[in-house]
Amino acid sequence: MNNLTTPAFLVDRTIVQRNCERMRAKALDSATAFRPHVKTHKTEQIARMQHGGHIGPITVSTLAEAEFFAERGFHDITYAVPNAPEKLPRAAALASKIERLNLLIDSHAALQAMERHGGTFDVFLKIDCGYHRAGVDPYDPDSVALAVAMARSEVVHFQGLLTHAGHSYNVRNLDEVRRIAAMESASVTRFRALLDAEGLGDVCRSIGSTPTLSVVEQFVEADEVRPGNYVFYDAFQATLGSCSFGDVAVSVLTTVVGSYPERGNLIVDAGALAMSKDSGPSHIEPEFGYGVVCDEQLKPLPMKLVALSQEHGKIETSMRVPVGTRLRIIPNHSCLTAAMFDAYHVLDNGRVVDEWRPVRGW
Amino acid sequence: MNNLTTPAFLVDRTIVQRNCERMRAKALDSATAFRPHVKTHKTEQIARMQHGGHIGPITVSTLAEAEFFAERGFHDITYAVPNAPEKLPRAAALASKIERLNLLIDSHAALQAMERHGGTFDVFLKIDCGYHRAGVDPYDPDSVALAVAMARSEVVHFQGLLTHAGHSYNVRNLDEVRRIAAMESASVTRFRALLDAEGLGDVCRSIGSTPTLSVVEQFVEADEVRPGNYVFYDAFQATLGSCSFGDVAVSVLTTVVGSYPERGNLIVDAGALAMSKDSGPSHIEPEFGYGVVCDEQLKPLPMKLVALSQEHGKIETSMRVPVGTRLRIIPNHSCLTAAMFDAYHVLDNGRVVDEWRPVRGW
Repeated sequence: MNNLTTPAFLVDRTIVQRNCERMRAKALDSATAFRPHVKTHKTEQIARMQHGGHIGPITVSTLAEAEFFAERGFHDITYAVPNAPEKLPRAAALASKIERLNLLIDSHAALQAMERHGGTFDVFLKIDCGYHRAGVDPYDPDSVALAVAMARSEVVHFQGLLTHAGHSYNVRNLDEVRRIAAMESASVTRFRALLDAEGLGDVCRSIGSTPTLSVVEQFVEADEVRPGNYVFYDAFQATLGSCSFGDVAVSVLTTVVGSYPERGNLIVDAGALAMSKDSGPSHIEPEFGYGVVCDEQLKPLPMKLVALSQEHGKIETSMRVPVGTRLRIIPNHSCLTAAMFDAYHVLDNGRVVDEWRPVRGW
Repeated sequence: MNNLTTPAFLVDRTIVQRNCERMRAKALDSATAFRPHVKTHKTEQIARMQHGGHIGPITVSTLAEAEFFAERGFHDITYAVPNAPEKLPRAAALASKIERLNLLIDSHAALQAMERHGGTFDVFLKIDCGYHRAGVDPYDPDSVALAVAMARSEVVHFQGLLTHAGHSYNVRNLDEVRRIAAMESASVTRFRALLDAEGLGDVCRSIGSTPTLSVVEQFVEADEVRPGNYVFYDAFQATLGSCSFGDVAVSVLTTVVGSYPERGNLIVDAGALAMSKDSGPSHIEPEFGYGVVCDEQLKPLPMKLVALSQEHGKIETSMRVPVGTRLRIIPNHSCLTAAMFDAYHVLDNGRVVDEWRPVRGW
């Protein structure tokens, strides 16, 4: 670790492995199909770890990820963001090379765009379970009509219902996460029942957010789960209670480049381009700061990362710390922090043993 | 522009050129040395535009930038972030290849680290003019002692005093920016006067932040200026008043991938990994959102970018906008948004004419 240029993104392989095994075992125990999201890490190595060392179904957030993983043998992929119509030719080209590329539909317009394009697309109907980002309202009769139109289409193959309880990130404690977890699976279960009369009562119910899938003992009322952040977790998830801080697999190694005990500040070389400017669990702890500052052994220090400019991180502390000291910062939001780095430095028992490279862009 | 995959980072070459010329002309008129920062754009093409098409002195925020620009002929570089001691060998290696690499010192410890390393380093003393990020207190007698020690050192060559009024970003109007601009140059001028008795009364005073350098008619009480963001400007700078919205040279092209008029929302494919999560001028307009949403001709629309998740941007609007519509978003903080993209698409009169690639990493 001493030889790394800072800022550097560190991944503890043992913890990733444990996080992967725990979630996979829960899916197996629940007899639920497992289609983990790869957007948090974007690496071939961790995608395999998510499936116990093997190739398996995955979820992606960009077509660039879909193409990257398809080239590496992942042939069953769900692209879980509504697709821009002009990207249909690119999606179709990829779909023709692999076993299955599932796309999302959440409007008649999206269905019509695929029908105008022609060919065949495997599709899920995106349901809004209360997050109010993408997805159709499951209480709107028109949503049933859209599902039926998808099932009857000659261009799309209706695979099922997909939802994501992203509002589990906006609550303050585990009881509220559990309540949202119940709403998440209930939303697709209830909506599927409405499709029974149309002969669609057994389509797949795909659910998942890391908080909701982490807090339940077993997955119920779901046929498939799609967790992603759980491979790394982060300061946000640990504060919310999805995991403990000991489950967080990643940190940013940084160097103190300025020490100003007279004003109670340090400057580290991890700024906004290393950490991202995610404010983390500020709705739970308003003064949380931009990450949890630890020593090189990941012991939290009485320091607060109060500000980030492009290449400066500003820490408030009463500790006197010399320039050159190395610190590790647990990121607020590992998905965004990981994406700031072209390479991850992989640790095993505190030693750097490998370097993994994520896919970037769109 | 129609052929670009979204999200895409667009740079209007004509506006960059105008912004570059205006700032350069002001430095020439003021008889002030011009050492623009390249961290906002990180491209060879714009670094040359900053100097009227030529090679010239530059300021960088990482050693990776310094190495990138040195390879492209820029041989007079100031690395304007305090340097981690373990990066001294790398800095020394670069310094030996070019005419000058100026480093910052803001503590006796930093000076001692260079003296332990040996060799020769060109150095500026970093002064804290009120931003309280890096830099020594110009009212502390020990700061004079440090300047004198730098001047007497056989390892470092004392080039002058450098300050950055980053607190100009935290105020609310131009009068306050002007007040900070006056403080910025006064801080180095006043401190330099203290060095007069030591025979150091004519060292270089290097100042600069885009707000403070944009609002003054002429640069006074400064020997060198180092603006950076002005090449692109952004929604933050336009709201603060450093520029008009017509001076902002960059935008993110995005596609509407979800349209939910029943809940007053759109989803676009520019999320946190395209925009960055900078909250922009929220201290001036608390409900500003994550950028200014415009049509394809950059006409602002009655839309607010209220939330960013990894690949989703959520817009609140009462407009009905079909899926597939393209929008342009003026970023809150162009330095951070530009860094999310591996390539910039360069526009001339609305047509894509070139692609520029920034340096990344550290």
